[in-house]
Amino acid sequence: MKDILIIGAGKSSGYLIDYLLEKTFQFNNKIVVADNNFEFAQEKIKAHKNATAVEINLLDESSRINLISNSYLVVSMLPADLHPIIAKDCLKLKKHLFTASYVSPALLEIEQEVKANNLLFLNECGLDPGIDHMSAMKIIDFLKEEGTHINGFKSYCGGLVAPESNNNPWGYKFSWNPRNVILAGQGTAMYLQNNQYKYIPQHRLFSTTSKITIPGLGIFDGYANRDSLGYRKIYGLEHIQTMLRGTLRSENYCKAWNIFVQMGLNNESFEVDVKNKSYKEFSSSFLPGFGDLKQRIAELCNIKIDDIAIEMVEWTGILGDEKIPFEIASPAKILQELLERKWKLQPNDKDMVVMQHIFEVEKDNKTKTIYSSLNVIGENAINTAMSKTVGLPLAIAVKLFIEEKIKERGVVVPVSKEFYAPILEELESYGIVFKEHED
Amino acid sequence: MKDILIIGAGKSSGYLIDYLLEKTFQFNNKIVVADNNFEFAQEKIKAHKNATAVEINLLDESSRINLISNSYLVVSMLPADLHPIIAKDCLKLKKHLFTASYVSPALLEIEQEVKANNLLFLNECGLDPGIDHMSAMKIIDFLKEEGTHINGFKSYCGGLVAPESNNNPWGYKFSWNPRNVILAGQGTAMYLQNNQYKYIPQHRLFSTTSKITIPGLGIFDGYANRDSLGYRKIYGLEHIQTMLRGTLRSENYCKAWNIFVQMGLNNESFEVDVKNKSYKEFSSSFLPGFGDLKQRIAELCNIKIDDIAIEMVEWTGILGDEKIPFEIASPAKILQELLERKWKLQPNDKDMVVMQHIFEVEKDNKTKTIYSSLNVIGENAINTAMSKTVGLPLAIAVKLFIEEKIKERGVVVPVSKEFYAPILEELESYGIVFKEHED
Repeated sequence: MKDILIIGAGKSSGYLIDYLLEKTFQFNNKIVVADNNFEFAQEKIKAHKNATAVEINLLDESSRINLISNSYLVVSMLPADLHPIIAKDCLKLKKHLFTASYVSPALLEIEQEVKANNLLFLNECGLDPGIDHMSAMKIIDFLKEEGTHINGFKSYCGGLVAPESNNNPWGYKFSWNPRNVILAGQGTAMYLQNNQYKYIPQHRLFSTTSKITIPGLGIFDGYANRDSLGYRKIYGLEHIQTMLRGTLRSENYCKAWNIFVQMGLNNESFEVDVKNKSYKEFSSSFLPGFGDLKQRIAELCNIKIDDIAIEMVEWTGILGDEKIPFEIASPAKILQELLERKWKLQPNDKDMVVMQHIFEVEKDNKTKTIYSSLNVIGENAINTAMSKTVGLPLAIAVKLFIEEKIKERGVVVPVSKEFYAPILEELESYGIVFKEHED
Repeated sequence: MKDILIIGAGKSSGYLIDYLLEKTFQFNNKIVVADNNFEFAQEKIKAHKNATAVEINLLDESSRINLISNSYLVVSMLPADLHPIIAKDCLKLKKHLFTASYVSPALLEIEQEVKANNLLFLNECGLDPGIDHMSAMKIIDFLKEEGTHINGFKSYCGGLVAPESNNNPWGYKFSWNPRNVILAGQGTAMYLQNNQYKYIPQHRLFSTTSKITIPGLGIFDGYANRDSLGYRKIYGLEHIQTMLRGTLRSENYCKAWNIFVQMGLNNESFEVDVKNKSYKEFSSSFLPGFGDLKQRIAELCNIKIDDIAIEMVEWTGILGDEKIPFEIASPAKILQELLERKWKLQPNDKDMVVMQHIFEVEKDNKTKTIYSSLNVIGENAINTAMSKTVGLPLAIAVKLFIEEKIKERGVVVPVSKEFYAPILEELESYGIVFKEHED
């Protein structure tokens, strides 16, 4: 029996679990959903006859081993930093592993062993990374086949709030792990632009943005995301002149977020004493000089005091008189707690996923730009576009694997046709459809 | 026999070892100098009859244990990150430990045990930290005794090149660990200014400077150093309104170094491919846009293209055509290798140590500022002011301890009179003398 173990039954696992529960009718296999919170797991299986909910203690090896031993494959929806533990268990017990997270250095270390054991450790098979790889590769392969040369590739993706549910100046609510949003861009972003490597330190990332136009939705800010350089090889674009993977935010978001960065608030490496302190007093400690906070922000960031970015920062309450609900905490933790209240997706709010690939191409000495754009709107705060676009590609990959339609083995990201063709096709039936235009 | 084990016989250990060798005549104790490079150790003991040079493999516990077991106390001149290992050995074997490094979290963890075993683990007994603590505490205790209230305390220290040996626009040559200079300010600097906490993220540290005037030497740049807040308690200045410990550099150094920081060159968290690349190409990757590097630096830092800071950066060669001698390396490593060649202390060069304490005080409703300044010039590239001012306080503390003049036990920094009175007095005989003035 090709039984499936799903570890992690948080908000983002809904679509994934529903899809796989539905497919068990077809294959008559069992699904075990494990979470450190038993209720989350129980809720997600919806009393399905082929499914079991269990509690897992990730720190207890015997608890993990026991569950993994009894499965045919493991799907991990855990936070990325927990994947190395699960990956090592899977290798030891010779089980296949499916995740939506980036390939980590720990996975690269066991790459040879995974392959030697004829196992598939599929990663980066969610939205971004995931759908971005697959939809880009479909176009890249097509262009190569028709003899079109690709000079540049840029790809942006963002999880935002749908326009109809937006009631804040940031155009943002949390549809994904808030901590990742707060700590975004902590490393140095690396990409290739006109044949020149570009390394952007975090303090310049949010002021090094591009304007991205999505048809029907308007203009967004894009900033570079992590290391784009490594994807040249993965995408088979070794000789490309521009290669950038980026994150999309609503217009002005980056300019306003840059204020937090310039202040040094997105930092979790130290803790500050904020007992009985207001947000205003806290903010003052991160700004040069004394006196009016907005004036000091304007001077620090070299913008006008009535700039929309300062209004956006003020809207969060971080310049206000409210007391901070911690005694001692890192600046990042204080900022996150505040924004989790301000940027909370309300029960009937709809989130939105936006993605755009931009190809600079050349054929017969003519150049053109091809845009391929995706826009998915969520249903509500539970059935989000984010959970749908992250969970479905991974779930479909699991189904294809059980159907023995996937031949690749090793530590893999879904860039080959074997993955992208059937997954993108099936995603279309769920309304996840790219639209192309040129200019 | 109160035998002394000195671990670490690098450049900075010269004065320390010479002093202790001299004192062994007095006490007839033995000295063992251990280094992972046997020749360094042998060179330093100068065939002294009471001294032995040995090779130590720090990673080999039995090698460490064997040496430490046979000693009465241990002096560690190792890089700070190796001290926790030695400290744990010393605790296990019930040996006293002397270092010039900052008290680390690892030491704080064993604080109770050290005290319970009646051991002295003396730290921060070099120059900065070390002489700064002792000379400040001498004045603080005096002011308190005479009923003067201290409103503010700032203290700056720098290891520079002596004016007579300065032939570069930075007024700087390496007299200490180059890596520490390259990575300076990587954390967030924390201090208190007019009763307000100030947290300065690293990307703003070198543009958040003060002008410091040293009598007879002129104007220097001062920037905040690490966490000054914790020293309020250590110095007994809990109710002070301004508390800042800082680093001194020659005028314009900070403005020029800030260019490297804005570019993101002081980063060792990632590696870049620089095979067959020139410094110019490397630098271009860290600057926005394309074209003339100096113009792009001017725009990035909002300064004029003929600013002295840009000239200083150009002087290093980092904008030039020379090839980088690495294939792949972190930006910090590339910068360090280049600067080690440019900022090398030549055999007859003299280095210089400069320190200044600034006290804002109040008595009988009158306020004044008290300055206490130190200036020590080295002899040459071996007998540096740096090695003298770091090594002698530690050596004198060891001598005092052997003479049973030190009663304090536990994890200690030298802020009590038991330390500072005899150490500062003896340092004066070596030309390490503070001068005071007021205004």
